[in-house]
Amino acid sequence: MSAIFHAGISGARGRMGRAVSAVLDAREDVVVSARFDRGETPDLSLCDVIIDFSTPAASVELARACAERGGPALVIGSTGLSPEQDAEILKAAETVAIVRSGNFSLGVNILIGLVEHAAQRLDARDWDIEVLETHHRRKADAPSGTALMLGEAAANGRDVDLADVRSAPWDGITGERETGRIGFASLRAGGVIGEHTVLFASDDETLTLSHSAIDRSLFAKGAVAAAAWVRNRKPGLYDMQDVLGFRQA
Amino acid sequence: MSAIFHAGISGARGRMGRAVSAVLDAREDVVVSARFDRGETPDLSLCDVIIDFSTPAASVELARACAERGGPALVIGSTGLSPEQDAEILKAAETVAIVRSGNFSLGVNILIGLVEHAAQRLDARDWDIEVLETHHRRKADAPSGTALMLGEAAANGRDVDLADVRSAPWDGITGERETGRIGFASLRAGGVIGEHTVLFASDDETLTLSHSAIDRSLFAKGAVAAAAWVRNRKPGLYDMQDVLGFRQA
Amino acid sequence: MSAIFHAGISGARGRMGRAVSAVLDAREDVVVSARFDRGETPDLSLCDVIIDFSTPAASVELARACAERGGPALVIGSTGLSPEQDAEILKAAETVAIVRSGNFSLGVNILIGLVEHAAQRLDARDWDIEVLETHHRRKADAPSGTALMLGEAAANGRDVDLADVRSAPWDGITGERETGRIGFASLRAGGVIGEHTVLFASDDETLTLSHSAIDRSLFAKGAVAAAAWVRNRKPGLYDMQDVLGFRQA
Amino acid sequence: MSAIFHAGISGARGRMGRAVSAVLDAREDVVVSARFDRGETPDLSLCDVIIDFSTPAASVELARACAERGGPALVIGSTGLSPEQDAEILKAAETVAIVRSGNFSLGVNILIGLVEHAAQRLDARDWDIEVLETHHRRKADAPSGTALMLGEAAANGRDVDLADVRSAPWDGITGERETGRIGFASLRAGGVIGEHTVLFASDDETLTLSHSAIDRSLFAKGAVAAAAWVRNRKPGLYDMQDVLGFRQA
Repeated sequence: MSAIFHAGISGARGRMGRAVSAVLDAREDVVVSARFDRGETPDLSLCDVIIDFSTPAASVELARACAERGGPALVIGSTGLSPEQDAEILKAAETVAIVRSGNFSLGVNILIGLVEHAAQRLDARDWDIEVLETHHRRKADAPSGTALMLGEAAANGRDVDLADVRSAPWDGITGERETGRIGFASLRAGGVIGEHTVLFASDDETLTLSHSAIDRSLFAKGAVAAAAWVRNRKPGLYDMQDVLGFRQA
Repeated sequence: MSAIFHAGISGARGRMGRAVSAVLDAREDVVVSARFDRGETPDLSLCDVIIDFSTPAASVELARACAERGGPALVIGSTGLSPEQDAEILKAAETVAIVRSGNFSLGVNILIGLVEHAAQRLDARDWDIEVLETHHRRKADAPSGTALMLGEAAANGRDVDLADVRSAPWDGITGERETGRIGFASLRAGGVIGEHTVLFASDDETLTLSHSAIDRSLFAKGAVAAAAWVRNRKPGLYDMQDVLGFRQA
Repeated sequence: MSAIFHAGISGARGRMGRAVSAVLDAREDVVVSARFDRGETPDLSLCDVIIDFSTPAASVELARACAERGGPALVIGSTGLSPEQDAEILKAAETVAIVRSGNFSLGVNILIGLVEHAAQRLDARDWDIEVLETHHRRKADAPSGTALMLGEAAANGRDVDLADVRSAPWDGITGERETGRIGFASLRAGGVIGEHTVLFASDDETLTLSHSAIDRSLFAKGAVAAAAWVRNRKPGLYDMQDVLGFRQA
Repeated sequence: MSAIFHAGISGARGRMGRAVSAVLDAREDVVVSARFDRGETPDLSLCDVIIDFSTPAASVELARACAERGGPALVIGSTGLSPEQDAEILKAAETVAIVRSGNFSLGVNILIGLVEHAAQRLDARDWDIEVLETHHRRKADAPSGTALMLGEAAANGRDVDLADVRSAPWDGITGERETGRIGFASLRAGGVIGEHTVLFASDDETLTLSHSAIDRSLFAKGAVAAAAWVRNRKPGLYDMQDVLGFRQA
């Protein structure tokens, strides 16, 4: 159904680059036309879209090069960019279509949309919201970035700032729960790849929205789905909510 | 914030009628202006809205009486109406606002909307859908009506008919799962009030959307929420998706 | 199958006393032969066993009276006794059979036994343990007493003191999880009666043991089961683990 | 702490044989002293224990050879043996120590023990039992063998035969649940490796015991743990319940 397109991989030798490569190789509608890493100069004219999991500096350089010649489109998964680097990406998006995200899992991004929808419709005076995440024992920070994205989605749905309503973990003498708060809890155990749950509870019922990763390759697959979507778009800065069509909803 | 309104209860001595009565009594913005059962003639002019959990025949009679005098609005929770009786309700809705539903739980109706949203966005070639429900040991049929509503929401999201894709329970030598099927499973145990889960699973991740009832009064509360919503509406036949604003989404 | 026995209720007008009364009334093998509260002097000779949810002082007084005349047996659910009062109960148990517990739910007490069994068998170098509990928004402390009992059961199974291995909630920059720790997390939301989960996770698999309360009457039912068990026992101080036969296992 | 031992792998080129090999290579207390497949004659004197995932015929032949020379010990994971082949294994176990199992996951075998314990203690007149399993879409039979093992453990705990109390899936007009039945339900979706849940529910509470596989290597690891346990045992036919110490409990 979909036409064949040509994809490049930036940061090709990194962990995510290799995972993206494996996913692209398994698809029949994609030809990988360039693989490169920092310091290498790719032939951008060979690519309809480039998937980039490299470094902030390399991502900015690539975005600039694409912007100068008006393409190809970009999927950027690099994290840790400075505000100045963020601004460079935004500027490049004036002349090239870019999807940028910190989490390319389709399921998590669907979940973000569902949480915002539900939070809009469930009155904060009646319904409490808690976000629970479980990760493997090597994860060194809590709550996870994705848990915070889910909390922000819930706060957006309620038209409040997460910073204003976020609770500390329930521990010790807490007193009764205040109306409107959004709580977070984390479990760290074994090799759990990643599980996220948003609990909405009233006096009489609960609504529980959860995501669980089965295989680590899912993040690479999401980036490739973003690439297939963005290659024919108008210039602009997009995220996974755009890719999935939640933005218009 | 909301003005006081006057509500009548049809089927007032039944189990649901008494539950609705208890919910209305606890609200400060409602006055119960009439309670009646089959064979009794209420003064409709006292009511802004009537909540009806009676019998098919009594519901039809009530809808006709309201239609003749152009009100009050109705919330109908009676089940088991014949197609002819359905048609009578539809006709009454030409001159009076009616909400009709088989499940007034806010949470379940939110869940129906979320399931349809998710099913629209998750490609049936990659994602399988299973509906699981758990109820108390006295429930005599399976799957639950609500599980079927959730299955229909999933089918709607995929633009197919549930009847065409519904699987029999997995049991015995089933062979591999066919693409596009929607499966159902039921558990019957103890006093579980009612739990529903819709599982979406790809090769790499799962998305799980669940509802659980804590207290049986929740169905009465949902009917009262529908009453508060419908009392000022234009004539028409509405359901809980309208009440919750999912229809426009 | 079981012979009829005569039960007394101490603290009969309290919340738990009334719940116990309702449970006893529904059983065909029990006659309620005495109901009394503080300041009232029951005729102990009418009872095979007394179920006591009163106050520390009243419980101690009752235990002394039973000890003096060599019966009836006791089930004590009062909490908040001082060490001196604890000692009085222990002394009474030299001549009368007493079951004492802070949680009479059969399911939770089964769970405690299962957690200890599992923790004994799952090597702490490979398996991490986390305890999660969810309660309604009015609960003012965390983690719940039952969550701590479950953590203690896990620590017992590993032959360590919970105080030595208990983790603070995972929050902020935590570093990698240390081997042997037992973590706790709490959710507070809506009207959730009470849910407890103990998660055991290795690199390759998880074992999850959970309890959920459907109805608040379950605590009264557990106390009545303890009464049926203790009425023919030899003098001694028992707990729910004895009642359920886990102690010998 | 544990001395080094020498292990052989029978069926070494098969999927499980390779997984076992990878697990053995990662352990410092094992030397792999023989790898062989059907038709190859290993030097049994090099091995303290042999792990066998081959074919029924090869397993029987290997067991006979070990029995003749009084060792080495065996771990047999081959399935589908005929009653005659079963009898051969049993006879070999008169002179050699053999662990045989259809599921070497430590967690599942712990779960089997916990389910039997719980079923013993939870009165069938009050508690219903349901077994739920979820597997990937390629699994062609239902319920899973492990679900049936869990059902048998529950039946054992109640001192009944599973065949006498097993329910068909709840579907259509089922009537109320009969006391004492054990039900099964299966979900088939995406790439779920394997999840098993045993639900115990009374009118007032539920106890839920679950296992989830994170990584397929767990079955190989369990077989290796069995090998480390069996290599110094007296002749006899053991299973994973013996390895884990549940048999004495």
